[in-house]
Amino acid sequence: MIRRLTIFGVGLIGGSLSLALRAAGTCQEVVGCSRSESHLREAKDLGVIDRYTLDPVEAVKGADMVVLAVPLGAMRGVCEAIRGHLEPDASLTDVGSAKASVVEAVREGFGEMPLGFVPGHPIAGTEKSGVSAAFPTLFHERRVILTPLETTDLGALARVRTMWEEAGAVVETMSVEHHDEVLAATSHLPHLLAFGLVDSLARMGEREEIFRYAAGGFRDFTRIASSDPVMWRDVCLANQEAILKVMGRYQEDLGMITRAIEAGDGDSLLEIFQRAKGARDRFCP
Amino acid sequence: MIRRLTIFGVGLIGGSLSLALRAAGTCQEVVGCSRSESHLREAKDLGVIDRYTLDPVEAVKGADMVVLAVPLGAMRGVCEAIRGHLEPDASLTDVGSAKASVVEAVREGFGEMPLGFVPGHPIAGTEKSGVSAAFPTLFHERRVILTPLETTDLGALARVRTMWEEAGAVVETMSVEHHDEVLAATSHLPHLLAFGLVDSLARMGEREEIFRYAAGGFRDFTRIASSDPVMWRDVCLANQEAILKVMGRYQEDLGMITRAIEAGDGDSLLEIFQRAKGARDRFCP
Ligand SMILES: NC(=O)c1ccc[n+]([C@@H]2O[C@H](COP(=O)([O-])OP(=O)(O)OC[C@H]3O[C@@H](n4cnc5c(N)ncnc54)[C@H](OP(=O)(O)O)[C@@H]3O)[C@@H](O)[C@H]2O)c1
Ligand SMILES: NC(=O)c1ccc[n+]([C@@H]2O[C@H](COP(=O)([O-])OP(=O)(O)OC[C@H]3O[C@@H](n4cnc5c(N)ncnc54)[C@H](OP(=O)(O)O)[C@@H]3O)[C@@H](O)[C@H]2O)c1
Repeated sequence: MIRRLTIFGVGLIGGSLSLALRAAGTCQEVVGCSRSESHLREAKDLGVIDRYTLDPVEAVKGADMVVLAVPLGAMRGVCEAIRGHLEPDASLTDVGSAKASVVEAVREGFGEMPLGFVPGHPIAGTEKSGVSAAFPTLFHERRVILTPLETTDLGALARVRTMWEEAGAVVETMSVEHHDEVLAATSHLPHLLAFGLVDSLARMGEREEIFRYAAGGFRDFTRIASSDPVMWRDVCLANQEAILKVMGRYQEDLGMITRAIEAGDGDSLLEIFQRAKGARDRFCP
Repeated sequence: MIRRLTIFGVGLIGGSLSLALRAAGTCQEVVGCSRSESHLREAKDLGVIDRYTLDPVEAVKGADMVVLAVPLGAMRGVCEAIRGHLEPDASLTDVGSAKASVVEAVREGFGEMPLGFVPGHPIAGTEKSGVSAAFPTLFHERRVILTPLETTDLGALARVRTMWEEAGAVVETMSVEHHDEVLAATSHLPHLLAFGLVDSLARMGEREEIFRYAAGGFRDFTRIASSDPVMWRDVCLANQEAILKVMGRYQEDLGMITRAIEAGDGDSLLEIFQRAKGARDRFCP
C-alpha cells in the first residue's frame, strides 16, 4: 500500500498509472506536480489525482513513492528541484522511454545516485498524450521493464515492482544497456520509419492525392507517426547511440532490398519477404 | 447485370468480388478457373462460385465479363491461354496491384490490345490470401482505380465501373503511370519498409527477446509484413521503376533523420516529426 504517491507529469502515462492504482485501491493519496496549473486542475477535475501543487518541494513532502512521468528532457530539472527534499523512506522511479539518459539525469540532478531510485519503463502507450488520454487499463497485461542499478535499494525495487503489478502490468528486469538496445529496435526505430515515410510523402507534390489512396495497411502502418513530436525528439536525443546502431543495420537491409529490385532479383526478394513473414507470424500471432 | 462472370484466380480478391456481386444479386453465374482443382472445389464448397473448370478456354465460353485476379506474374500466361477465345462482347479487366506491367502482359499475351480490356485495381485487401480469406464486404466504400487506355472501349469501361459499384466500391479513373507512382508511395513502399524492419530484427541475435518487447505500435506497424511474399515479390518486379524512385526519396529522408540524430540536432528532428504528425492527422483522421 502506497501512503502518498507523487507524480511529476500527470499526462498519458502518469495519469494512467494514477487511475490504475486508484482503481486497485492500493494508494491512499495521489499528488500531482507539473508546470501548468490548468493541466493539473484538469487532472483533478477528471478524478485522476487527489490534489496538486506547482511546487516540487511541497509535492514530495510525505511521499513514500515518487514517479517521474515527465518528458525525457525534463527529468533532470525535476530532480534538481527536489534534491535534498525526498523523504528518507521514499522510493523514486521514472517511466522514461530510454533508460541510460534518465539514469544520467537523475545522477546529475541529485548530485549522486539516490539509493531508492529504480529506473522503469512501461511498454504501453498510445499515439495520444495529455491527461485527457489517460485511462486506468493502459498497463493491463503489458510489460514494465525495470532496470535496477548496482546501487538500487532492494526494498525500493520490490515496492516499485508491486506498484506496477497492482496497476495490472507484468514486471521484468534487465540492464539499462540491454533495455536501450531492445527498445531502439522494437519501438524507437519503427517510430522513426513511420515519421520518415509520412514526411517523405507529405513533401511530394500532390500530397492530398497521395494520401487519398492510402489504404488500410497504410493507416495502421503510419498510426505511430501521430505520436508526440517532442517526446520522440527527446527519445532520439536520449538514446542516440543504440538508435544509430539499429538504424544502420536497417538501412543496410533496405539497401539489400533496393539492389534486389534494381537487379530484378525475384529470388532474393522472395527470400527476404518469406523470412520476414515467418518471423512476424511466429512472434506476433 | 452480368450474364456469366469468369474469374481467373479465386483467391482473396477474386473470391471477394464474386461474393460481393452474388450478394448484390447482379450476376447470373460465376465460373472460376485457376491451376488447382482443390482450391476451386473449396471455392465452390464455400459458395463463392457456381462452377469451375481447369480449362481456360472452356472458362471464358459465354462469359460477358472476365476478371484476371491471379498474381501479377501469372497474368500473361492466362492471357495467352485465352487468346482468340473471348466472346466478342466480353469485357476484360484485372485487379493487379501495379498497372503498367499488366497492360504489357495483356498486350503480349493477346498479341494485341483487346478493345474490351479495362485495367483495374481495388485499393482494398488484407494480409491474408486464398479463397478462405474472401468476404463479401471487402470492397465496401473502398476505392477502385480504373486506368483505361486510349484503345479501351467505352462500353467496357462503363460495365467494369458498374460491376465495382455493385460490389460496393467507389470507382475513380487515372492514367496507368499515375496509378503506379501513387501506389508505389502509399502501398508498395510501406510494405517494403515493414518487411525490411521485421527481417532486420529477425536477423539480430536474441530475436525471441526482441519481439517479446514489441509493443502495440509495433504490431500495427508490421502487420503488413504478414502479407503474401509471392505477391509482393511480383509487385516489386512489376513496378520496379516507380518503387525505386520513391524508395530513393525515402532513403534520403531517412538519411536526413539519421544525420540529425548523429548531430544531436533536436530542432530538425522536431520539425520533421511535427510535419509528419500534421500530415498524418490531417489526411488520416
Ligand atoms: N506516450 C507513450 O507512448 C509512452 C510510453 C512509455 C513511456 N513514455 C514516457 O513517459 C513520459 C511521459 O510521456 P507521456 O506520453 O505521458 O507525455 P504527456 O502525456 O505529454 O505528459 C507529460 C507530462 O509532463 C509534464 N511536463 C512536461 N514538461 C515538464 C517539466 N519541465 N516539468 C514538470 N512537468 C513537465 C506535462 O504537464 P505540464 O504541461 O503541466 O508541465 C505533462 O503532464 C516520457 O518520459 C515518455 O518517454 C511514454
Ligand atoms: N491481397 C491484396 O491485398 C491485394 C489488393 C489489391 C489487389 N491485389 C491483386 O490481386 C491479385 C490476386 O491477389 P490475391 O491477394 O487475391 O491472391 P490469392 O488470394 O493468393 O489468390 C490468387 C489466386 O490466383 C490463382 N493463381 C495463381 N497462379 C495462377 C496461375 N498461374 N494461373 C491461374 N491461376 C493462378 C490461385 O489459385 P490456384 O492456386 O488454384 O492457381 C489463387 O486462387 C494479384 O494480382 C494482386 O496484385 C491484391
